[in-house]
Amino acid sequence: MKSLTVIKIGGNIIDRPEELDSFLMNFIKIDGPKILIHGGGVMASEMATKLGIKTVMHQGRRITDLETLKLVSMVYAGWINKSIIAKLQKLGCNSIGLSGADGDSVPAVKRSPVPIDFGYVGDVDPAQINGGFLMSLLGRGITPVFCAITHDRNGSILNTNADTMASSLAIALSKDYYTKLIYCFEKQGVLSDPDNENSVIPLITRKNYESMKEAGFIKDGMIPKMDNAWYAIDKGVSEVYIKHASNLNNDKGTVLK
Amino acid sequence: MKSLTVIKIGGNIIDRPEELDSFLMNFIKIDGPKILIHGGGVMASEMATKLGIKTVMHQGRRITDLETLKLVSMVYAGWINKSIIAKLQKLGCNSIGLSGADGDSVPAVKRSPVPIDFGYVGDVDPAQINGGFLMSLLGRGITPVFCAITHDRNGSILNTNADTMASSLAIALSKDYYTKLIYCFEKQGVLSDPDNENSVIPLITRKNYESMKEAGFIKDGMIPKMDNAWYAIDKGVSEVYIKHASNLNNDKGTVLK
Repeated sequence: MKSLTVIKIGGNIIDRPEELDSFLMNFIKIDGPKILIHGGGVMASEMATKLGIKTVMHQGRRITDLETLKLVSMVYAGWINKSIIAKLQKLGCNSIGLSGADGDSVPAVKRSPVPIDFGYVGDVDPAQINGGFLMSLLGRGITPVFCAITHDRNGSILNTNADTMASSLAIALSKDYYTKLIYCFEKQGVLSDPDNENSVIPLITRKNYESMKEAGFIKDGMIPKMDNAWYAIDKGVSEVYIKHASNLNNDKGTVLK
Repeated sequence: MKSLTVIKIGGNIIDRPEELDSFLMNFIKIDGPKILIHGGGVMASEMATKLGIKTVMHQGRRITDLETLKLVSMVYAGWINKSIIAKLQKLGCNSIGLSGADGDSVPAVKRSPVPIDFGYVGDVDPAQINGGFLMSLLGRGITPVFCAITHDRNGSILNTNADTMASSLAIALSKDYYTKLIYCFEKQGVLSDPDNENSVIPLITRKNYESMKEAGFIKDGMIPKMDNAWYAIDKGVSEVYIKHASNLNNDKGTVLK
């Protein structure tokens, strides 16, 4: 079975031009078909401030009204996505920038307004992803680069969490590829001591995960990330990595199996 | 030879939601492979004002500094392009939003800063367009929707004139298709009397074009549009139409042959 690498990067890379350039240099070294998913970074919030749009968050997730939807589509699907594509083309990596609306690749369902109305936010069912279209691109040697924007098949785009966008894509393609999902992270990996970058836990199994959670090694923002990762594994993804982008091409970091 | 329709729309459609919806309803009725190219409209200028970016024009063409490049990529490749794609998907037209950087589809050369420095503006050589990639999309029944953004193959995106983007795409594909290029226009067509919408000239040949220009029937902003059209015909495009979007599916308007 052919191998596929699905990589998610966030603001800590996107917001720093040198980090981004160096990440992309490492990214193109990955053999075989690959897909990149990028988040948004601080640019959306900066642009919101300039445009007088209030950023409203609920438990770390942005509430997306129509003005905010416009804003994130502009920043994520426009400037960030196209800048990455131009850089990859320069590096000789033929790539294509996509939202989930493009080629109907990633349809989503607008989240229920109860109990919290997140506005134009979409949740993805991996079974609805148009894997055939993505495989046809990968088969032509074209690397898809996704921003975390989807659509509702009813005429509207939707803002989507980039971590779940990445796991959904990895799950959808795991029927046809041996799929590795890599979350690039601001730390070296999952740390047993959050203040010590040398305390990376190299391997987390389902069994030791539960005891780590109980013991308080894994907490706060790491829990939804880890839940996403286990969900991906349950649904067919072969390996999930949580690591620093600078270690993309080596073994450092945490692997979940 | 299979027929291909390449259609360009501008601000007069994009800026009016009902016009856009009704245009897209007509657009999907066109049989066979088709490509849409859209300009920007007033939203870029509105956004520039909100962000405090000065809009500098030279002979009707925007001068694109880095901040303006960010802005146009956000508005054209982000919000406008993805909104159109979501609408087309709702109408059952599988489409994909592209800049010229995506799939290296439309590379361009940054315009010389002499005599006027237009900044990040790119000119397209139709011979450099990646027709194979576009044909593979068309062959899968996917309709490409282009914003007028290209790239320099050296890591930067470039702002490009939407009329020439449309003619360049039509020229590049005219080797493989019987190609019709349609410029949707705010008037009913080329008018012999600019104040009379009933004075549409139905057919312009190369021969009567010169005499019309001499007689002053064709002037100002129409001249570059017409030059673009004749250039397209010289390079292999079969028919060029200049018409109002509401007449997309009928014979009204001007045809150049």
